[in-house]
Amino acid sequence: MRICVVITARASLARVYTVLEALRYLCDLRVILAGGALLHHYGDTERDLPCPVAHRVFSSLAGNTLRTTAAETGMLTSYLAHLFAEDAPDLVVTIADRHETLATSIAAAYQHIPLAHIQGGEHTGSIDDKVRHANSMLADHHFPATAQAADTLRRICVRGGIYMLGCPSIDLASRSLTDDKWKDYLIVLQHPVTSEAALAAVQIDETFAAITGAEFVDYPVLWLWPGQDAGSDALAKRLREHREHDDTGGIEFVRHLPAHQFMSVLRSARVLIGNSSAGIREAAFLGCPTVNIGSRQTGRERAGNVIDVPHHRHAIRAAIARQLSHGRYDSSAIYGTGRSGEAIARHLTALCRHSAPQGNRGVPPEVAAPVQPHHAP
Amino acid sequence: MRICVVITARASLARVYTVLEALRYLCDLRVILAGGALLHHYGDTERDLPCPVAHRVFSSLAGNTLRTTAAETGMLTSYLAHLFAEDAPDLVVTIADRHETLATSIAAAYQHIPLAHIQGGEHTGSIDDKVRHANSMLADHHFPATAQAADTLRRICVRGGIYMLGCPSIDLASRSLTDDKWKDYLIVLQHPVTSEAALAAVQIDETFAAITGAEFVDYPVLWLWPGQDAGSDALAKRLREHREHDDTGGIEFVRHLPAHQFMSVLRSARVLIGNSSAGIREAAFLGCPTVNIGSRQTGRERAGNVIDVPHHRHAIRAAIARQLSHGRYDSSAIYGTGRSGEAIARHLTALCRHSAPQGNRGVPPEVAAPVQPHHAP
Amino acid sequence: MRICVVITARASLARVYTVLEALRYLCDLRVILAGGALLHHYGDTERDLPCPVAHRVFSSLAGNTLRTTAAETGMLTSYLAHLFAEDAPDLVVTIADRHETLATSIAAAYQHIPLAHIQGGEHTGSIDDKVRHANSMLADHHFPATAQAADTLRRICVRGGIYMLGCPSIDLASRSLTDDKWKDYLIVLQHPVTSEAALAAVQIDETFAAITGAEFVDYPVLWLWPGQDAGSDALAKRLREHREHDDTGGIEFVRHLPAHQFMSVLRSARVLIGNSSAGIREAAFLGCPTVNIGSRQTGRERAGNVIDVPHHRHAIRAAIARQLSHGRYDSSAIYGTGRSGEAIARHLTALCRHSAPQGNRGVPPEVAAPVQPHHAP
Amino acid sequence: MRICVVITARASLARVYTVLEALRYLCDLRVILAGGALLHHYGDTERDLPCPVAHRVFSSLAGNTLRTTAAETGMLTSYLAHLFAEDAPDLVVTIADRHETLATSIAAAYQHIPLAHIQGGEHTGSIDDKVRHANSMLADHHFPATAQAADTLRRICVRGGIYMLGCPSIDLASRSLTDDKWKDYLIVLQHPVTSEAALAAVQIDETFAAITGAEFVDYPVLWLWPGQDAGSDALAKRLREHREHDDTGGIEFVRHLPAHQFMSVLRSARVLIGNSSAGIREAAFLGCPTVNIGSRQTGRERAGNVIDVPHHRHAIRAAIARQLSHGRYDSSAIYGTGRSGEAIARHLTALCRHSAPQGNRGVPPEVAAPVQPHHAP
Repeated sequence: MRICVVITARASLARVYTVLEALRYLCDLRVILAGGALLHHYGDTERDLPCPVAHRVFSSLAGNTLRTTAAETGMLTSYLAHLFAEDAPDLVVTIADRHETLATSIAAAYQHIPLAHIQGGEHTGSIDDKVRHANSMLADHHFPATAQAADTLRRICVRGGIYMLGCPSIDLASRSLTDDKWKDYLIVLQHPVTSEAALAAVQIDETFAAITGAEFVDYPVLWLWPGQDAGSDALAKRLREHREHDDTGGIEFVRHLPAHQFMSVLRSARVLIGNSSAGIREAAFLGCPTVNIGSRQTGRERAGNVIDVPHHRHAIRAAIARQLSHGRYDSSAIYGTGRSGEAIARHLTALCRHSAPQGNRGVPPEVAAPVQPHHAP
Repeated sequence: MRICVVITARASLARVYTVLEALRYLCDLRVILAGGALLHHYGDTERDLPCPVAHRVFSSLAGNTLRTTAAETGMLTSYLAHLFAEDAPDLVVTIADRHETLATSIAAAYQHIPLAHIQGGEHTGSIDDKVRHANSMLADHHFPATAQAADTLRRICVRGGIYMLGCPSIDLASRSLTDDKWKDYLIVLQHPVTSEAALAAVQIDETFAAITGAEFVDYPVLWLWPGQDAGSDALAKRLREHREHDDTGGIEFVRHLPAHQFMSVLRSARVLIGNSSAGIREAAFLGCPTVNIGSRQTGRERAGNVIDVPHHRHAIRAAIARQLSHGRYDSSAIYGTGRSGEAIARHLTALCRHSAPQGNRGVPPEVAAPVQPHHAP
Repeated sequence: MRICVVITARASLARVYTVLEALRYLCDLRVILAGGALLHHYGDTERDLPCPVAHRVFSSLAGNTLRTTAAETGMLTSYLAHLFAEDAPDLVVTIADRHETLATSIAAAYQHIPLAHIQGGEHTGSIDDKVRHANSMLADHHFPATAQAADTLRRICVRGGIYMLGCPSIDLASRSLTDDKWKDYLIVLQHPVTSEAALAAVQIDETFAAITGAEFVDYPVLWLWPGQDAGSDALAKRLREHREHDDTGGIEFVRHLPAHQFMSVLRSARVLIGNSSAGIREAAFLGCPTVNIGSRQTGRERAGNVIDVPHHRHAIRAAIARQLSHGRYDSSAIYGTGRSGEAIARHLTALCRHSAPQGNRGVPPEVAAPVQPHHAP
Repeated sequence: MRICVVITARASLARVYTVLEALRYLCDLRVILAGGALLHHYGDTERDLPCPVAHRVFSSLAGNTLRTTAAETGMLTSYLAHLFAEDAPDLVVTIADRHETLATSIAAAYQHIPLAHIQGGEHTGSIDDKVRHANSMLADHHFPATAQAADTLRRICVRGGIYMLGCPSIDLASRSLTDDKWKDYLIVLQHPVTSEAALAAVQIDETFAAITGAEFVDYPVLWLWPGQDAGSDALAKRLREHREHDDTGGIEFVRHLPAHQFMSVLRSARVLIGNSSAGIREAAFLGCPTVNIGSRQTGRERAGNVIDVPHHRHAIRAAIARQLSHGRYDSSAIYGTGRSGEAIARHLTALCRHSAPQGNRGVPPEVAAPVQPHHAP
């Protein structure tokens, strides 16, 4: 039984890390790294993997414009078409909503290879929504992270099983330990918004001004480098300019933290500032106060730990102050309770088993009813 | 105002022919021919166009396997990404559900170019369903052909306007005149089913046996060559073998009829046999009796003129006999009444006009409420 | 020790068949089939291989125009770049001069993988010359087929060893036995000339007229289908038209003969007519009279068995008559004596062995002096 | 008359700048920017062009490994195949020896579009040699820069006219004026060597140590950022580390100087250190002392201004000292005298004119004898 998982970005790794840990011993697991997941620039994804890599597809085009996101998705589709044809997996897994994930879905669906989609059904209000729902439409099996996402899938999907087993990234959060080195930080993690790529530099200015011009720079600040997206080059450039020309005394700039270390920081952080989904998902479970800036997470289901603000320095600053005075929140289980990875892995292999004997690659009609999510104690 | 329409197969031409006729005089129309639409083998699409061609993208891979459908879709995505970036259209139109149509959708949506999808919301029960719905998910404006399709889109689509204006292919049907040369024929048009590519030869055998072994070969038979899809090479090969080795006395094999001529044949045909969507759509309007074989049109909304049968010679033969004794049906308006093309063209240009002044490329919120479809007299 | 051989067309197989037979047991042989070698349309190359296939790359674009030859070469280059990077061969073999062979050369040379070129240094007077010499320029090791070709390489090549060991296709010719079924035929094998693609149909007309309108149709005629090249679709179409509309009584049209069977036919053929290189190479060894039409083989070194004629029916007919009255020729050894394959295979593995210990991938300076070709008895 | 010039890197611009200036008014000039020429990271090539851009092809793959150089060359070949087919130029110009230049050559030659190659026939001793000679093999017209290069082409080329008109980059050098701001600098410009990509960081260390640990840091140092090649990411990373951790007091790091400004610096520089071809070519004309490090320029024809040293800090330092004490050299004309661009442009258009009336795209046999190079006063 062969299962193929395609990872196209560092950010996707946390979404499947514990799934891969379990799949490794349950099937012939073939992990394909592609796109940004192969670029050291964006963190060495391969080193952090819990399993070996079967294939590497260098599909990221230099330039990071809207045009290249489309062009590189096309190129990746062609490569994956050939890899799937040669490796003949029984099941392919596509993850979430990055632009390259449609390449995985097309390459599998067009060859009638059963396709599982992890983290469908959510809403975030940009091109990601379109990609995520298009993935769901091409997939045969759905592993949404929340009850609300499962509802959305039930409403839009005409076919396939829906298994609501929580988000594997919460597994990592639940395992994390407080790291004495990185205690009580303000964390900043702000990505460009692909539909507002031209504004990336201006947006980062506001956040920078909010952080540097305020009294709470008493707390140390950990500023994480943005991931790879249309606009990320401009954003990174501006960040470099700030670092060179402005007073960034209390700020530590870090290009990349491995997922487990990032979780440790989050476990004790004073506030997470920016527009990372971690502020909505993992922070919900860990009770970390989040100041979520701008539209990137609009529509994503959230617990009580989030204050939403526009890209405006005063608003950002005020929200940070409010979160500092509030302190940590109670843990929320909306994105899972820390045991999703293995549950998903077992389900995936069960889906293969049920498909296999029939000699066809269609959806197995007799697959057991979706299991209920584990509930947190 | 520039609108770009991508046509990837001969079969898609009828779906937009009258839209192109009208758009030509309403905007800077850029037609891109790609895939099978460029292959003489499948009919000279360019010669039949009502407007000039702006770009030609040779994207069809030889071989026609499931692997190549995915690989060529990827390649086309990359080319279109560059063409759209260079031509900078205000709106892009993608058509129906062939595998390459997702290339158009991705190349436009990823660059935030407003995308209109013609003929979404239908059901046919194969990979086409997945592709069609994925297109809808990436599109901003929807032009379904039937009321039921519009309902489906309303249910699954979270965004964008839905304009139910009928199917432009009915425009061609409504214009057609009886052609004395091609009167009272039995027409056979059977394509491979992509999810059953390995069965293509066996399936055509049943149809061939049904046609040749029966008394109704009194009527002349017009057998049209299949279009390009996974399995079409095998199907065409078998057809050639029959033609060479078997008695095909009353059968005329024709590689390709221009759309208007095909409509003329349909207007007076005794029965249309096979699995073409024309048997469901245009035949509904023209009242042509249809024997629809196998799963290719499963789920497609139909009028009373269709008898569905499995791939079995006796069942096919019996259904033909029943349709012959029934004769022509009354016209049905479920797929439109013959005035869709211009209505759609005017709507597309209106969408551009409303988008343009705002300096952004989002969905224009103030677009007039979807117009009602014209009703047939 | 891993050696990778890329085969992109049925016609290339004969050039390496006996090399593969030997390499199979000398190293970890990875054969990659690509382009036309994967299309049943052009003969099932995989079935005829003397070894298993490691990868299949569907890289042929439908359409067969000059544009697609360039586009598909580019696409194949990209795929091979990834396959070589993943398979990490110690040596790559590229064959002769078809347009796709430059893909192999670029993918290897750009990654500093030692590249061996079989059949460089010849002259044929079209784009093939350019491709062949460009391959030689990218290669590190050269295996020309004739003494004259080796001289040319010495003159143009600034680097790499030159090993003149004859042409492996002669090995197949030397093994062939007379086949009673296919005895005393006239054989026709005419390909399109890529630089004259627009003339392909007219050119085949002349040959057809020469063959059908003459008294020597007393001999049976075996007409082989053309290979895949710019212009081959047009040529094949015209051939089909002749077959359907004209009197082709004594002619057997055959889509594809396996190499060994083709050699058997050649061994006793009355005349080989057309523009295949087999008429120059294998026919030289077998003493088969050849009527070589047009420019496709211009410049190729030839023995005494060839009469060259332009694309003109009378000239073709007169030459056939002359060859018929002359009868078979003496065997010539200019293209080898039938023991090239194993010699080349042993040399290739020796080159790997000498490269390996140095830890670099450059040309091994101490490789033994080029061996002398075997001479025919 | 339409001429298409493809520029794939900032470094190639100087090689054709004055050709483009002249061509712009002599024909329908279509400049295509591709690869690194589109990346701001490597200098804004478009802004520095003397003419508008017709097409932009984002073909650079992120990662810059040997694998991606091959893969991106393939991708670019496919795009250019389509662009040339659509634009139908009468002549295409490919420049020098970067890996992507073969894409231009294949896309033109395979479509029988006359191809001119600028700067063939030189020797530099790495993969560049292979690419350069392969380009020459595919080209119909050759514009070598030196008499020795023309000799090499005469020896290796079987076809096409050879026109020795000097190197257009010398035109820019001859125009340059001393820039008071950048007077009397030591200039460092060191690129990675593609065949030694793994050593790029170590090699830059030696140069860095040579520069920083010596008394001649009395002179200001201008350190230019490396161009894009396999290994450039590693080299740039190491350079950033030095800049952050070591004393780089007298060194100004500059990412990119426009060509004309670079020439001004060169006109008065004390020494040019590194492995740029500018140290061999433009510096010969300007009499600038050059310390050429390592193998990148091995084999390139040079005037008396160059001292070659290995990648060793003491050797580099000693050579710099020797050049400082020697001072500026006399001007040499081996690479031209500053009037190449217009001469080449006129020849290119003449080639088109002679080709056109014959209705074919071959080499015009009656083109005037190669003109003699202008000689420097």
